[in-house]
Amino acid sequence: MKLQPERLQHLATALLEGRGAPPAHARLQADLLLEAELRGLPSHGLQRLPLILSRLDKGITDARACGTGTWRRRSFLSVDGERGLGPVVMMHAMQTMRNVLSETGIAVAAIHNANHIGMLAYYAEAAARDGLIGIVMSTSEALVHPFGGTQAMLGTNPIAIGIPSGDRPFVLDLATSVVSMGKINNHAMREMPIPSGWVMDAEGRPTTDPQAAKTGAIAPFGGAKGYGLGLAIELLVAALAGSDLAPDVHGTLDDTHPANKGDLLILIDAAAGDGSAQSLATYLDRLRLSRPADPANPVAIPGDGARQRRAETECTGIELPQPLLDQLMALEAA
Amino acid sequence: MKLQPERLQHLATALLEGRGAPPAHARLQADLLLEAELRGLPSHGLQRLPLILSRLDKGITDARACGTGTWRRRSFLSVDGERGLGPVVMMHAMQTMRNVLSETGIAVAAIHNANHIGMLAYYAEAAARDGLIGIVMSTSEALVHPFGGTQAMLGTNPIAIGIPSGDRPFVLDLATSVVSMGKINNHAMREMPIPSGWVMDAEGRPTTDPQAAKTGAIAPFGGAKGYGLGLAIELLVAALAGSDLAPDVHGTLDDTHPANKGDLLILIDAAAGDGSAQSLATYLDRLRLSRPADPANPVAIPGDGARQRRAETECTGIELPQPLLDQLMALEAA
Repeated sequence: MKLQPERLQHLATALLEGRGAPPAHARLQADLLLEAELRGLPSHGLQRLPLILSRLDKGITDARACGTGTWRRRSFLSVDGERGLGPVVMMHAMQTMRNVLSETGIAVAAIHNANHIGMLAYYAEAAARDGLIGIVMSTSEALVHPFGGTQAMLGTNPIAIGIPSGDRPFVLDLATSVVSMGKINNHAMREMPIPSGWVMDAEGRPTTDPQAAKTGAIAPFGGAKGYGLGLAIELLVAALAGSDLAPDVHGTLDDTHPANKGDLLILIDAAAGDGSAQSLATYLDRLRLSRPADPANPVAIPGDGARQRRAETECTGIELPQPLLDQLMALEAA
Repeated sequence: MKLQPERLQHLATALLEGRGAPPAHARLQADLLLEAELRGLPSHGLQRLPLILSRLDKGITDARACGTGTWRRRSFLSVDGERGLGPVVMMHAMQTMRNVLSETGIAVAAIHNANHIGMLAYYAEAAARDGLIGIVMSTSEALVHPFGGTQAMLGTNPIAIGIPSGDRPFVLDLATSVVSMGKINNHAMREMPIPSGWVMDAEGRPTTDPQAAKTGAIAPFGGAKGYGLGLAIELLVAALAGSDLAPDVHGTLDDTHPANKGDLLILIDAAAGDGSAQSLATYLDRLRLSRPADPANPVAIPGDGARQRRAETECTGIELPQPLLDQLMALEAA
């Protein structure tokens, strides 16, 4: 059954408000999850909601907190997330940073003690739509093995980069694992095997069982280079946010621990630069029109696919797995 | 024949000074090339020197220029490289940025009109040894095809990240192509075929001929994700430095055009962060000791291999291809 986005937005907002989230916080958290669904990224969509609600029920997450920022330097904001909802703390930090950007041109927020921030593209795109370059990084539980290793020692450590470019901002969002844990969870929920090469089991053997990933390790993307990038993000976040390193991280996949991963947000005032958003847009169109390997599949720009899926899903509605829908309906009725 | 690093350093410095480079500029440019040789990265080593010298001979590069920085914002330095040597302009920008870092915590330099900056690890490591996090990006001629495409539309767009961590700073340096153009040139010089999967020829067909890469296109690393990262670097550099986009870039592989690519340097005062360099070092040691896929190959940290090769090569000397050595000797004798 397909449901209209407004129906699901209303459902998610009500469930969050029912657990003490102020309306604006509930709307923001729900909007983040809905945007992921609309863009065809169910791994970061409503399947995350039951855990978020459970954490609120147990008092591990404080739905009222916005996070408290301290300017350690004129362009360096240290944020204690105060166990707040991830998107609330992140958007609050972005707002705080705007105050200095016209003066400094670049600023960084290093965030600890905030909950899962979900789909990073959300923040990178919000920045880019506002004339800012946004670079977002986040860490997680140990889920990824090093290149040449077999044990989960790194987070999936995503990075998103948003850049103003004409009407359609450039928005890159990638996990440095070959796949996100959310997508593996989604395979598990749909009882689908995962492609080979994604995961090693607890003994270090390749497997296609999504359940095995939970005690095993996901491969980094792109071999040694992707591993290096993921490791750099692990270190950057820990160095600046003072958050824990992957083997000691908890709280984005369970409802028993405070979240002790970290997040970074770097904002740059694009107007301080010497380039032009229009020349970027023109170049991106040249890329789209360049000779494809397969004539049926034109060259794509990161964000194009999500934008197209979003337009389609807004009309057709969102298809949720029945067990998830049942779970959300039961929560609503409770 | 293996040569002592000091001999080659002296040779390179003398050749640069002979073309009007001030001694400090000549030493810095030579040191960058020698460091690449010492670390087993001949693609960024002395094979670049003849072109650098030819550009000086023709007056396209100004060996005296340091670049002129303009603070567009308190933490945003716009640098006109004034056709200077890449490493001279980059290290001069780093020095200029140091003046504001204790106040701002983060700063960015966006550089246009400077020559090839070579091995990016050099700058990232210099920053990290100085207690700074250094993030370096650079663009180049169009050498890389988009994921799903066949035409060279992007630069090899490397990124380096240096992070203080105990005695041994973390230094990542990667091209977003599956291989650097320098390495392909090195294969061409040594008349060795390149592995399959690296390059498409001008007609969009896979090839193992290193010469074909010059009119063809190199693959991005890591599929769609590596392509996305390389494209983000292309756009970030152009947006901030106002430099040209890959299809219009010249001047790092020829001796006829000024270099119109761009470079970015982001520096962050690690002391402003809430983490500790020692905890990063401890974590990196845990990674090194984690279970490897192959017991004969322990898990490596980016920079470990270069550090080890450097220690060995310092003792054993540097092996240059005979044609390159002959060329340098002839230049010295001229």
